Amino acid sequence: MKVLVINAGSSSLKYQLIDMETEEVLAKGLAERIGIDGSQVTYQPEGKDKIVIKEELKDHGDALNIIIKELLDEEVGVIDDITEIDAVGHRTVHGGEEFKDSVKIDGDVIEKLEEYSELAPLHNPANLMGIRAMQELLPEVPEVAVFDTAFHSTMPDYAFIYSIPYEFYTDYSVRKYGFHGTSHKYVAIEAAKMLGKPLDELKIITCHLGNGSSVCAIKNGKSIDTSMGFTPLAGLVMGTRSGDIDPSILFYINSKGYSMDQINKILNNESGALGISGVSSDFRDIEAAANEGNQRAILTLRKFCYSIYTTIGSYAAAMDGVDCIVFTGGIGENSALDRGQICKNLSFMGVELDHDANWFEKGNRFINVPDGKVKVAVIATNEELMIARDTIEHIND
Amino acid sequence: MKVLVINAGSSSLKYQLIDMETEEVLAKGLAERIGIDGSQVTYQPEGKDKIVIKEELKDHGDALNIIIKELLDEEVGVIDDITEIDAVGHRTVHGGEEFKDSVKIDGDVIEKLEEYSELAPLHNPANLMGIRAMQELLPEVPEVAVFDTAFHSTMPDYAFIYSIPYEFYTDYSVRKYGFHGTSHKYVAIEAAKMLGKPLDELKIITCHLGNGSSVCAIKNGKSIDTSMGFTPLAGLVMGTRSGDIDPSILFYINSKGYSMDQINKILNNESGALGISGVSSDFRDIEAAANEGNQRAILTLRKFCYSIYTTIGSYAAAMDGVDCIVFTGGIGENSALDRGQICKNLSFMGVELDHDANWFEKGNRFINVPDGKVKVAVIATNEELMIARDTIEHIND
Repeated sequence: MKVLVINAGSSSLKYQLIDMETEEVLAKGLAERIGIDGSQVTYQPEGKDKIVIKEELKDHGDALNIIIKELLDEEVGVIDDITEIDAVGHRTVHGGEEFKDSVKIDGDVIEKLEEYSELAPLHNPANLMGIRAMQELLPEVPEVAVFDTAFHSTMPDYAFIYSIPYEFYTDYSVRKYGFHGTSHKYVAIEAAKMLGKPLDELKIITCHLGNGSSVCAIKNGKSIDTSMGFTPLAGLVMGTRSGDIDPSILFYINSKGYSMDQINKILNNESGALGISGVSSDFRDIEAAANEGNQRAILTLRKFCYSIYTTIGSYAAAMDGVDCIVFTGGIGENSALDRGQICKNLSFMGVELDHDANWFEKGNRFINVPDGKVKVAVIATNEELMIARDTIEHIND
Repeated sequence: MKVLVINAGSSSLKYQLIDMETEEVLAKGLAERIGIDGSQVTYQPEGKDKIVIKEELKDHGDALNIIIKELLDEEVGVIDDITEIDAVGHRTVHGGEEFKDSVKIDGDVIEKLEEYSELAPLHNPANLMGIRAMQELLPEVPEVAVFDTAFHSTMPDYAFIYSIPYEFYTDYSVRKYGFHGTSHKYVAIEAAKMLGKPLDELKIITCHLGNGSSVCAIKNGKSIDTSMGFTPLAGLVMGTRSGDIDPSILFYINSKGYSMDQINKILNNESGALGISGVSSDFRDIEAAANEGNQRAILTLRKFCYSIYTTIGSYAAAMDGVDCIVFTGGIGENSALDRGQICKNLSFMGVELDHDANWFEKGNRFINVPDGKVKVAVIATNEELMIARDTIEHIND
């Protein structure tokens, strides 16, 4: 059984073809600059060189046509016939309150996704472009939408409600949704396997740390809180996003002559690590600057880690304890410095890192001291595989 | 030595005359509706009946004139001569970054307070009215400003900086200031006395819970973080204030046709417990409604407590541990229900309440089980006494 996983952005489309017997990637790549001059598709069959196809891509359909042509190519292809693609799984950002799980796509689902475009104007319309292009190309193949929000649908009301007039929830759907759900779910499942314990008996805090970052409290396999909110702007310090700030700051900045559109842009694109450091939104650049003594870079790293370990503390309280903390995402998987700084303030709850395991070992592993009360794991996330697994599970919905 | 403590609002003025030898209140009261029809002053000498003086109060000076006349009154007065007032302490909301401690008031201080009026437009101008009226009435008596923000001036930069462009800090003074500092400081000092340990060796989390609420992390006697922020809107669920919310919600509500002024009013006056419950901003009303099964009232209490115990968890992480949690303020001192609900999720860090001590004992006391790892105290706050103590300490600045 083979699943094609699609992650469609407004002018890009990432894909992976996964063999579900082995859970191995057969081929993967990226279409870029769709609808823009200089568009191209990269195609990389497993174990072979990457191929770059420079061709005009008017729309997502053009991109998918090329991708399928390459997948079937006599020389570099990985399948002999289009019917070998058994299902398509679409990463879909916003499932609103409706979709508490992945779902096989039909007309009703598409209608709902259009509705939720208002809640995720940057993402859902792009996801829909990918879905529609795929339906035209392979109308017989079942497609499944896998939502970033669905895993968090188990949050209790006191975690997802905002303390603003209740009518904003009932009339305008303003509530915490949370994102990165596919990643949090994947690493929680992997952590349970590594621990050799059933997921539904564990308290896990997963830290997905990358350009966008979020922390999730997972009690007995269910997300009970997460740091992103109504939108992915909320929560931790991110690459360019502010995370949580006193909402009054918006009124104050507005009174200084900044329009709401400007403030929206500032909080989403010019804040976070970039805003504090003035150096970069990339934490590798900031670590380098910090190493050279740049005080704002040092402050940025401290603030970033502070926002994470205080959130871990708050989620330990949300679950009254934690069995395992998981680090994933670009920073979570690769920055021993940040992991160390985050964990050193958590000794009061039984977190203690093993220096060598944190700094020198590689791959999925525990990095706590051998008899550590709280296990700490580094696990590479794999959202595509999670989407493919969910797709298989839901093609007969 | 006697200190007159003044807390001036825009149309009100609270006062207490305190004998610093005994730290006892000699007389206290409130001037109301200053500059508005129906103004009056209440005056209550210790141990005697409250007197209500209905008289036109054009300004704060009129109010203070009446107060001083009553203090000197042959029958109900508590001093024989005006010179018995050795100093005046003013509760002052915003000291900006300048005032890291209480300060004797002079021209420079007043100039700075005017400057900080922009940061606290509802409070500092009112505080200044009280200061100026007092200076005219008793020009020879030293006056001291005691700031709500000063106790939090010890916060490290990574706690007070927001992850927005750094220039908003340097150019516009946008940072976390924190409030309720006088109360947090007072109960932390009292807690150390009750524990019989030096304050500078303790990790204390103080929860000031009332109509406005904040939590403070106090490490070795110094505030290192607190839940209010740039303004008192931030942090916990409050009576009518939203606390922290995803800042994107403001853009979304704005796009629905609400102006920034409307949103400001909604978040400050119509949100919090009132907004969620739809019942009241008074937690006693909400508890009553919850007891009758009102689901939104139950949700409100859960959300309120959730915002507190997750904040306690995050501050335990900020200090890597906690020796003592203190409850104070109207709700903190009086709601055994809330204290119980907050603490029951903190057993992972060694918090365990004694049921009887929590529910049935009265006054300042510990409510943890006898051998509890983390002490939990209920302590009545006394901001006026703290202001008076600080005033004495600073009259020779």
